[in-house]
Amino acid sequence: MLTYKAPLRDIKFLINEVFDYPGHYKTFEHGKNADSETVGMILEGFADLAENVIAPLYQSGDAEGCHFKDGEVTTPKGFKEAYEQFAQGGWQGIAYPEQYGGMALPMSLNLIKSEMLGTANWSFAMYPGLSLGAVNTILEYGTTEQKDLYLPKLVTGEWSGTMCLTEAQCGTDLNQMKTSAKPNDDGTYAINGSKIFISAGEHDLTENIVHIVLARLPDAPAGTKGISLFIVPKFLSDNDGNMGERNGVSCGSIEHKMGISASATCVINFDNATGFLIGEPNKGLKAMFTYMNTARVGTGIQGLAHMELAFQNSLPYAKERRSMRALSGTKEPDKPADAIHYHADVRRMLLTQKAFTEGARSMIYHVGRYSDKLADATVRGDKKEIERWEDKMGFFTPVLKGFLTEIAQESVKNGLQIFGGHGYIKEWGMEQIARDARISTLYEGTTGVQALDLLGRKVLLQGGGKVVRDYTASIMKWCGDYALDKDMRKYVWALTKLCAEWNVLTGRLAITAKRKNREIISAASEDYLMYSGYVMMAYHWARMAAIAFDKMKNGGEQPREFYLAKTQTAEFYFDKILPRTSGLADSMTAPSEVMTDMDIEHFIID
Amino acid sequence: MLTYKAPLRDIKFLINEVFDYPGHYKTFEHGKNADSETVGMILEGFADLAENVIAPLYQSGDAEGCHFKDGEVTTPKGFKEAYEQFAQGGWQGIAYPEQYGGMALPMSLNLIKSEMLGTANWSFAMYPGLSLGAVNTILEYGTTEQKDLYLPKLVTGEWSGTMCLTEAQCGTDLNQMKTSAKPNDDGTYAINGSKIFISAGEHDLTENIVHIVLARLPDAPAGTKGISLFIVPKFLSDNDGNMGERNGVSCGSIEHKMGISASATCVINFDNATGFLIGEPNKGLKAMFTYMNTARVGTGIQGLAHMELAFQNSLPYAKERRSMRALSGTKEPDKPADAIHYHADVRRMLLTQKAFTEGARSMIYHVGRYSDKLADATVRGDKKEIERWEDKMGFFTPVLKGFLTEIAQESVKNGLQIFGGHGYIKEWGMEQIARDARISTLYEGTTGVQALDLLGRKVLLQGGGKVVRDYTASIMKWCGDYALDKDMRKYVWALTKLCAEWNVLTGRLAITAKRKNREIISAASEDYLMYSGYVMMAYHWARMAAIAFDKMKNGGEQPREFYLAKTQTAEFYFDKILPRTSGLADSMTAPSEVMTDMDIEHFIID
Repeated sequence: MLTYKAPLRDIKFLINEVFDYPGHYKTFEHGKNADSETVGMILEGFADLAENVIAPLYQSGDAEGCHFKDGEVTTPKGFKEAYEQFAQGGWQGIAYPEQYGGMALPMSLNLIKSEMLGTANWSFAMYPGLSLGAVNTILEYGTTEQKDLYLPKLVTGEWSGTMCLTEAQCGTDLNQMKTSAKPNDDGTYAINGSKIFISAGEHDLTENIVHIVLARLPDAPAGTKGISLFIVPKFLSDNDGNMGERNGVSCGSIEHKMGISASATCVINFDNATGFLIGEPNKGLKAMFTYMNTARVGTGIQGLAHMELAFQNSLPYAKERRSMRALSGTKEPDKPADAIHYHADVRRMLLTQKAFTEGARSMIYHVGRYSDKLADATVRGDKKEIERWEDKMGFFTPVLKGFLTEIAQESVKNGLQIFGGHGYIKEWGMEQIARDARISTLYEGTTGVQALDLLGRKVLLQGGGKVVRDYTASIMKWCGDYALDKDMRKYVWALTKLCAEWNVLTGRLAITAKRKNREIISAASEDYLMYSGYVMMAYHWARMAAIAFDKMKNGGEQPREFYLAKTQTAEFYFDKILPRTSGLADSMTAPSEVMTDMDIEHFIID
Repeated sequence: MLTYKAPLRDIKFLINEVFDYPGHYKTFEHGKNADSETVGMILEGFADLAENVIAPLYQSGDAEGCHFKDGEVTTPKGFKEAYEQFAQGGWQGIAYPEQYGGMALPMSLNLIKSEMLGTANWSFAMYPGLSLGAVNTILEYGTTEQKDLYLPKLVTGEWSGTMCLTEAQCGTDLNQMKTSAKPNDDGTYAINGSKIFISAGEHDLTENIVHIVLARLPDAPAGTKGISLFIVPKFLSDNDGNMGERNGVSCGSIEHKMGISASATCVINFDNATGFLIGEPNKGLKAMFTYMNTARVGTGIQGLAHMELAFQNSLPYAKERRSMRALSGTKEPDKPADAIHYHADVRRMLLTQKAFTEGARSMIYHVGRYSDKLADATVRGDKKEIERWEDKMGFFTPVLKGFLTEIAQESVKNGLQIFGGHGYIKEWGMEQIARDARISTLYEGTTGVQALDLLGRKVLLQGGGKVVRDYTASIMKWCGDYALDKDMRKYVWALTKLCAEWNVLTGRLAITAKRKNREIISAASEDYLMYSGYVMMAYHWARMAAIAFDKMKNGGEQPREFYLAKTQTAEFYFDKILPRTSGLADSMTAPSEVMTDMDIEHFIID
């Protein structure tokens, strides 16, 4: 009973009026192909595919799940046909070079594609989505021969790809990885080992699957300094991509999961499989960071996707369902009760959904500009520029992944609460969104891992808080322009105060970590992540409000009430959501010695 | 792979050392039967049944679910045998009079039973648990004949009972209820209508099911003033309980749900079913309040149950799973990585689980004393005392139901996060706990309904904040005793400040509601509920800490490290959890006009 309608107004507001994508597109090669007419057609194309082809398979795909038999995975009914339509439309390659069969459009449009397809049906979107991890890796690290062989097949969606990192004994901690690669006489490698949690590791959507596998060479140093990358296709092929014999790669089983049931999560066994080294020996970790950053931004998009779907479907229910009378007096005297949206508490839940969803989209589309620059540098093979834009994105990535997926849990939960008991019943679909959303805080590094990456690495290790000083300086500069604006001053003063506090907190944590207890970084990290996310989102809401106030006065692309709603949502966010930062600030700086001191055997005493 | 061990140490600490159940038991009739030896045997009996009979069916029951065919419901494999063992042990009737086959023990022991059985297997526990709603209703409102006919069958568990309230068009809002009751010539009533979401409405565990049905008499006033209660058994019987013909009651279907799959959630259709009026005509609502309060405390226990199970099972995983090295230096040099419990962030998650779980238990066992008094008054038919203890419990009930089930979501989620990606995989069982816990914020009145009950009814309507003034006065009196105690002063000063703030917030909301906008009560209610919960739990942790400090000095029933862990957990709660109150306080008093002013058609503009 769920439906999806692509939020094209909101998307256009962000790309045209907030982030000036048209101007930005003039600054790099693929961007120049993206004139406004092309972008319009592409957005309409995504929307049509997402709404009419992919979304109708969301609930049926969950109910049916994937089938596993004799090493083969069959996707749910309709997936194969939908995937064919997707691939034939050329949608897989929109952001990749024309020489490989792509459309050579900006990567930011690919993020918007991920959002729309993912909102329509996250499990479906994972098949082509994960494949891009392999594409990006080959594009950046592959030899010309490897690019020429694999990219045309992958960019068109004829083949798909995976990333094989996790093993049973280790997820995030790749130090413990054991899969081995022994050189064969012909320059290839014999890959042996077993990988788990491989999304799209086996399926029936494409004729071949190209695995990017992390493995250790015989003489590799211990730990992450001894990881190399290998291309291990399911079927070997000649140099023109003509399918050859089956490689020693097999799917041992698929996982039975809480959600994303239509996405095959595979155990992939490598039994003397033939692998081809990609990139330099023992330098695989760097490539994995590149991959993981993309996957983490993608998971942030997943947070947005589930929030959007839950919001779109709980809003009409709040208009139709009637219960009790509003505290401020009867609203619908001719009905047996008032529609539940009249209850302020229900509005609070809806507005939280709206503020989180649209705020998340703004945070992602902002990073979309960087992803364009990074993709441009990657296509040009400009290592220095790649590093520059990776660094730029590095600060935002754990926030998008960690914060957006955490607030997604709350936002989706609000959707369920609005449905009351019906939220728990499968046919309404809300519970599926909650189940599907649950994975987003777990995979691609748990929230705890993102939090440590943000505070430990990006903020403290890399420059002792500089990244926060720089970011808050840019916010404060922006605030300065509105300090006397009567519509905006409330927001900019609140933001200015938070920018100061954010720096103070960062400094206090740095000092405590240095002088007293390094473990405070871990102890405080999740509070710090959430705090950072709420402040970042506040900046985005303030910017959206400033633009909306302007457009209400001077006219914009959207109707006046669209802009009015933006300013009202910003007000709600600042009044009702942003106060959460104060508890987080207190909690992160509170003493944490008791946590480290306590004997683990005393947590439960039998 | 989940296991359950009844936390007998913690239970005994609360009943013996914190709440002095032995002393309390001397003050009422059923209590006098509960000498310490009997209580010990009962607790061991619950534990044995829960651990060895009921818990092993938790995951298999979920995987199999209930079966529905031709109006009949079959429970999962093993449920029938386990239920027989439960009934034959006399466990259903422990808190009910001996004349009906019960053990005449205190109701608080029944709460502990609910906790243990519910932690072992919530879906299973719902069958006998819901039945007690019918028992309590008949005990309080039934005629002698009705009691003599139904109670012996229900108290022994030979039959089970249900409460039939909800209809498709209305859940909480019983105003909209339509099921009708027309008088027959013989003094019985013909019941017609359809009820939904009837837990244990149909199943194969007992030979008969006694439905308590809310319906309207032909001349009934509109709304909730026209609700009457009827006993509608599945099979009619003679006055000795010998089974007669099948009544016009049938199960139309069972729901497919996110979780609690082994609990049959039924559509129950009444087609000229024979019903027997219970209590006075049109006075059914009052009885339903009694029932709902019990059910809501029961749902608070569900929150505790899921938290306990998740904590018990994520703690050993945190000891076994190894990933990365601790920030404060390598802890296990001979292992490939440190156990994850060495990471402060993982400890934060574990300690949050511990603080919430044990804090919740204390909050419930505190109310357990009132439930004893209420049950005693009910057995004696002392209407005035019934009202007194219902009033006493009334303030705590929405907090137990609303707050404990909300923090249960977080607590259980921490369990999943500790498992990383494995938390999402069915075989580990953690995801089942998350799915099962999800219903607890939805049924028996959503969190929003509890919040409005607390702030709107219990706090503001009934005495303009008196209940908060009284409760905080009792906390402050207690705090006074420890103001100069060096171990305790940190806690009591924090609590004292919060008590003052709680009253100020209540007053501010009351004034805003009166002068400006009544809708603020709804807008602020969930923040207020959570705020109240966190402060209440702080009081409980302070009390537990005070006792633990004393026992460490002077000796207690438990080993010293048990008490040490209590004081450390209290410290963690005050430092790391309690700061959340500041954000809630700011948010609840922030302006909320924008929420009510915003046009619902502007939430999403197509």
